[in-house]
Amino acid sequence: MKKISVILMGCGGVGRQLLQHIVSFRSLHAKMGVHLRVVGVSDSKSLVVPVDVLKEELDDELLSEVCSVKSAGSALTTLGALGKGEYRVFNGSESRRETEGIAQLLGKSTGLVVVDCSASSETVEILTKAVELGCCAVLANKKPLTSTLEHYDKLVLDPRRIRHESTVGAGLPVIASMNRIISSGDPVHSIVGSLSGTLGYVMSELEDGRPLSQVVRAAKTLGYTEPDPRDDLSGMDVARKALILARLLGKRIVMDSIKIESLYPEEMRPGVMTVDDFLQNGIAKLDQNIEDRVKKASSNGCVLRYVCMIEGSSVQVGIREVPKDSPLGRLRGSDNIVEIRSRCYKEQPLVIQGAGAGNDTTAAGVLADIIDMQDLFP
Amino acid sequence: MKKISVILMGCGGVGRQLLQHIVSFRSLHAKMGVHLRVVGVSDSKSLVVPVDVLKEELDDELLSEVCSVKSAGSALTTLGALGKGEYRVFNGSESRRETEGIAQLLGKSTGLVVVDCSASSETVEILTKAVELGCCAVLANKKPLTSTLEHYDKLVLDPRRIRHESTVGAGLPVIASMNRIISSGDPVHSIVGSLSGTLGYVMSELEDGRPLSQVVRAAKTLGYTEPDPRDDLSGMDVARKALILARLLGKRIVMDSIKIESLYPEEMRPGVMTVDDFLQNGIAKLDQNIEDRVKKASSNGCVLRYVCMIEGSSVQVGIREVPKDSPLGRLRGSDNIVEIRSRCYKEQPLVIQGAGAGNDTTAAGVLADIIDMQDLFP
Repeated sequence: MKKISVILMGCGGVGRQLLQHIVSFRSLHAKMGVHLRVVGVSDSKSLVVPVDVLKEELDDELLSEVCSVKSAGSALTTLGALGKGEYRVFNGSESRRETEGIAQLLGKSTGLVVVDCSASSETVEILTKAVELGCCAVLANKKPLTSTLEHYDKLVLDPRRIRHESTVGAGLPVIASMNRIISSGDPVHSIVGSLSGTLGYVMSELEDGRPLSQVVRAAKTLGYTEPDPRDDLSGMDVARKALILARLLGKRIVMDSIKIESLYPEEMRPGVMTVDDFLQNGIAKLDQNIEDRVKKASSNGCVLRYVCMIEGSSVQVGIREVPKDSPLGRLRGSDNIVEIRSRCYKEQPLVIQGAGAGNDTTAAGVLADIIDMQDLFP
Repeated sequence: MKKISVILMGCGGVGRQLLQHIVSFRSLHAKMGVHLRVVGVSDSKSLVVPVDVLKEELDDELLSEVCSVKSAGSALTTLGALGKGEYRVFNGSESRRETEGIAQLLGKSTGLVVVDCSASSETVEILTKAVELGCCAVLANKKPLTSTLEHYDKLVLDPRRIRHESTVGAGLPVIASMNRIISSGDPVHSIVGSLSGTLGYVMSELEDGRPLSQVVRAAKTLGYTEPDPRDDLSGMDVARKALILARLLGKRIVMDSIKIESLYPEEMRPGVMTVDDFLQNGIAKLDQNIEDRVKKASSNGCVLRYVCMIEGSSVQVGIREVPKDSPLGRLRGSDNIVEIRSRCYKEQPLVIQGAGAGNDTTAAGVLADIIDMQDLFP
């Protein structure tokens, strides 16, 4: 049985779902000859590890307990003594130091995958350090990959040792497919996609004549948006995905090089306006303009979509009119779609479409990434 | 630089394209830290190898010469002394013995990928032998994977050491995506697809009211069909793809378990009727029935598609009415499409669509498979 040691950063919805998947699919993975050995779980404050990371792992009972504790909104320090094995909890800067110690210990011996399911911009330091120490990295977190080029270069130093399928389109096989295209010498000419479940939902609802303000309020109630819906409406999340795809294609760019269309104006930005104020008073002022654009598009046989477009050196995200009768135009709800054009996919693009959001799908993508790295382990 | 030794079986369109890709993308692969070292090329009669496979490889000049010779329809024995290195040519049973010798020599030392780009049912023996000897296998050839379960089990003994993306949908990332879904513990509920470029073309042309006989004759003239179009119309090619996908899902089935609808009746089969007789007299007798089915489908808002359907223990290939306004119904020309439903892709399927035929795309899929196995090499 091949043992893959894993340390998880981030105990939000995706991280907890990943732990549950790891526990649930033990027998499936055993059949594949693989055992996932969880040797650390951390949230933003604490890290839980077995007493001896070389010989022990966090057992399934403890992993389930971690999920319950975090799901109830409690701190890792409140963990009971439920697991069969003993464990230790480190806090604050000790937590970071201990993670690095484990990376040092396992990186070049048995191997270690550092998994980032957080939404933090703080993990990039420990990730680059871990990669430097010979560890593998799997990310659902977009921020480390959309930081400076210097950080990026360090992270992808050995591209075989970093995977991040779930940063774009959740579990959809977008990155895996792009890596295949790239390694087969098929040059990518362009990528066009709808990569935000939230904005996908908003755009397809607008099409039915509902005002933007109403659609966004409903989306927030349904839990489709971030707590502050402006985090979606700003286009920043889509821009991060676009940057990740563009960098994968070898483009040496940073966030500032991307032309981003925000769905709200500067004067309604967080800091100037509270979330409540934005939803109650601000956003309604944007209804008319969007309604006009929807109508104009419709008169051209088109609908509006919030898309990411990568072509040559240009990377843009924003609203575009697309033909009603095109794969992008037919997209409904929160599905994602990516159209890749290359030498092999010239007349018709390679299209990948499906659920692009959700903890289950995102965690499944992370798990597939980990399993796919098994040949790097002794 | 990581060296991946490769031996190619099959010098038809796909095999030659693969050799050209290998030569063309040397610098790309060098940047990725990989060098593809071709240590053997064989057609059905002969095998060309360097004098010392441990130290030498077939150089790019010789590989280009192999492509020219085979492209002109000549035998490998007519190769000139163009390459810088020396090489040897083995014929008949010696060729097979020599291939096995190389597998024995390299399998467990530097590693070897045996690539099958032939269309032969004879390669399964040497492939299973090579896998047994520790080699990797990459297949564009469907036949070894659709032989007996005994052969299949031997081939996939270590699933990490066999790849066969190009057996289904050419270079489309269907198998890679399915492997990700499977390894993440997401159970596949069903697969529906249009997996034949030829039948895709035929079906979308029928939709426009043209008679079957005319469409098939035109397809043959355009080079879209096999030399005997009945090889496409029998549905056997699609059935092989369906069997490969079903076995990937763990189903223990053989070709005989698949319900296959042939587009021509028994009395028009090869052996009973010549190709010319079939095209001039036979096929026109099928026009009326197909026209009636097309009309009936149309009155239901549907079109006909030749699809592969896998669900539970049932695997079927044949003509189905599908809604005009569905991804399958909208498919035109020779594009392939696969819709996968699973726990993660339940309400809407995961859709993968694009060019599913052509030597370039198929060879690109083979090349991506080889590169993707690099971690298995020292």
